[in-house]
Amino acid sequence: MPLTTPIDPPTRFTVTRTTDALWRVTFDNPPINLIDPTMIVELQGLLSEIERDDGPAVVVFDSADSDFFLAHYDVAADPSALDALPPAPTPFHHWANLLIRLTKSPAVTIAAIRGRARAAGSELALATDVRFASRERAVLGQFEVAFAAAPGGGPSARLPGIVGRGRALEILLGGEDFDGELAERYGYVNRALPDSELDEFVDAFAARVSRFDRLAVADVKRFVNAASLPDDDALAAEMDAFAAALARPATPALLERAFTHGFQTRSDVEFNLGAWVGELIAEPTTPTSG
Amino acid sequence: MPLTTPIDPPTRFTVTRTTDALWRVTFDNPPINLIDPTMIVELQGLLSEIERDDGPAVVVFDSADSDFFLAHYDVAADPSALDALPPAPTPFHHWANLLIRLTKSPAVTIAAIRGRARAAGSELALATDVRFASRERAVLGQFEVAFAAAPGGGPSARLPGIVGRGRALEILLGGEDFDGELAERYGYVNRALPDSELDEFVDAFAARVSRFDRLAVADVKRFVNAASLPDDDALAAEMDAFAAALARPATPALLERAFTHGFQTRSDVEFNLGAWVGELIAEPTTPTSG
Amino acid sequence: MPLTTPIDPPTRFTVTRTTDALWRVTFDNPPINLIDPTMIVELQGLLSEIERDDGPAVVVFDSADSDFFLAHYDVAADPSALDALPPAPTPFHHWANLLIRLTKSPAVTIAAIRGRARAAGSELALATDVRFASRERAVLGQFEVAFAAAPGGGPSARLPGIVGRGRALEILLGGEDFDGELAERYGYVNRALPDSELDEFVDAFAARVSRFDRLAVADVKRFVNAASLPDDDALAAEMDAFAAALARPATPALLERAFTHGFQTRSDVEFNLGAWVGELIAEPTTPTSG
Repeated sequence: MPLTTPIDPPTRFTVTRTTDALWRVTFDNPPINLIDPTMIVELQGLLSEIERDDGPAVVVFDSADSDFFLAHYDVAADPSALDALPPAPTPFHHWANLLIRLTKSPAVTIAAIRGRARAAGSELALATDVRFASRERAVLGQFEVAFAAAPGGGPSARLPGIVGRGRALEILLGGEDFDGELAERYGYVNRALPDSELDEFVDAFAARVSRFDRLAVADVKRFVNAASLPDDDALAAEMDAFAAALARPATPALLERAFTHGFQTRSDVEFNLGAWVGELIAEPTTPTSG
Repeated sequence: MPLTTPIDPPTRFTVTRTTDALWRVTFDNPPINLIDPTMIVELQGLLSEIERDDGPAVVVFDSADSDFFLAHYDVAADPSALDALPPAPTPFHHWANLLIRLTKSPAVTIAAIRGRARAAGSELALATDVRFASRERAVLGQFEVAFAAAPGGGPSARLPGIVGRGRALEILLGGEDFDGELAERYGYVNRALPDSELDEFVDAFAARVSRFDRLAVADVKRFVNAASLPDDDALAAEMDAFAAALARPATPALLERAFTHGFQTRSDVEFNLGAWVGELIAEPTTPTSG
Repeated sequence: MPLTTPIDPPTRFTVTRTTDALWRVTFDNPPINLIDPTMIVELQGLLSEIERDDGPAVVVFDSADSDFFLAHYDVAADPSALDALPPAPTPFHHWANLLIRLTKSPAVTIAAIRGRARAAGSELALATDVRFASRERAVLGQFEVAFAAAPGGGPSARLPGIVGRGRALEILLGGEDFDGELAERYGYVNRALPDSELDEFVDAFAARVSRFDRLAVADVKRFVNAASLPDDDALAAEMDAFAAALARPATPALLERAFTHGFQTRSDVEFNLGAWVGELIAEPTTPTSG
């Protein structure tokens, strides 16, 4: 009976079942909460549990690391773990598939963002239903353009319906960091709360929603999804473009340079990545593809 | 000549013809401005007048009760008054039909929100063109989910295009009260004004627009409607789901409990309904349908 | 070799090539930066240069006049300069065509708004990708409705996806001025900055984006355009309605009256046009078309 076989405990996050109806998923993948193939596979397993008839009504995503909600995708990781999943056009498409599935989850998903949520980390937040952020500690951004790549996990399709066309273009083309306060002003997050109040606020909201009728919640999500979710085709096209960028010379060369400066480690580069990537292309030896 | 027969004066609101071009509709249905079948029938009659060639250019909706703009739908009311209207799939669909007609009105409609505008009251506000709110006294919300029902009057289709997907889901799934200031930050209302300035501000805006050319105003509404109104089918589907919820056991049982605590009276429950419904489901005897 | 023939230097704006990748277009058409047929022809020539393979990555639009970014269209101008362009249904449609082309430009376009950007001036800003405004000195608005015309350059189709349906209707039906602070609150501009910081902020953002990979930038624009640009047909319909208004009696009569008060000169009327047009229709001799 495969559907009821307990899956292995996840290694990239913990799942706390506060009640049957309310689960908390805490990302915990030191040193900086990179998203890697194993995390994608484990999140697909989690979604299978969430989608069960006795699954939770509400799932909160937070982080064990107050500096990093989810740093970004681990571009150095061995993709072989993804072989456990149904085939996809490229390894990267597994990420888009996961996010598409997440947006259609029967559960209400809430991102409680403390620390950095950049690139794929921002994309996961944008694929949840509701985003609350720490005013002092949240940092959101999509820095991919600085690595000569369009983001692949859907933000170009999702952001215009969340923050409007002009702010979407600024976020995606500037590749800068947005702190909690500015993210709220733009609508990038629902609300930024004082860091000392974020947990209590999220807990109260999540507990409240978890007590509501499941059919009513599912109806609301279905109607709002119909009014606001982008087509799967649009999301696949974004990932095609991201994968194509990775196959051009510019992106790997830029990544290589970034690694020599501490990219993907708990370094100043990762703490201040939005500012740092603004200088990345300026160095004279940068290859260009354009 | 039925089209020119004067209709009976409405009993649920008053109509003040400030000028031929500017009408004010003041909801006045004590004790808390519930929306009932008679109000729906009277509002349909009002729309017939508005749609006449010599109808007004601008209609302001406000309330005679500074605590309640429109409390919500009167679920205890005898629906027989609705028999005066063309047939609809259920009594509730008359409400959706009214709001669809309101959004397509040739007149510019303005909601001046002071007091509570919850559930169907919020839905009416969302079906007007422009929403101004009292910063201190306005309260908006969609609490239906706490009664095990998805809202039926269109907010799941309308809110994503007004406040964005994430904030729409928070409003609809949390079922909480939004005060004037937060409603403005979210875009739920155009603007929240100090209570002492609201009337003068709305009057000036309405008078100004009422002096503008009718063809130009109609062109603008037509183009903005084409760019932003949801399909009628999407709105009908929401009302189907609402009616289905009312036919399940959970919603009537929750309503019955609420009535014992003062629901639909001028009570603490109605004053603080957003907070109160958060505890409604938590009681152990609550039936669930999920 | 027509493609490489240098075009005549523009007379309505200057083009500063800060780098090959970053151009600055400074509107300079005294006395108040009206948009006229010659400016439209020159902007079409500019777009041809921008669209060349060696065109810029980023184009900033600003103004030599700190009181007027772009006042509005010069309704008194001889349209014959437009004969240089491919045929269009009416002279006005050349403006819509220009804006449609601008939104699809391969370059990232940034409006740095200081001074008044009303009617067609606002429309140009709305057709750029990113809008930054002076908090103290920017003024945006669409006053056409006060002249008995629906705006023709796309704002009815664009604004709902930028500021939401309710705020779009307020902007278009009220015809009032929006200062920088309110424009930011509504999302009409991305951000309003203190006037003393605007230039440095825009320069830094533009220079940063101009260093990024051209293919990545083009991918992002393509995806965001697919998710957020209105159909060309919707934009053409708006211009049809604007041209029809100009052919009715009301609009020319209102314009004639405005000219006697200083319209299109560096006058109090132009400085405070949003307020002034609110009184325009109230005069008893105004013809009406409705």
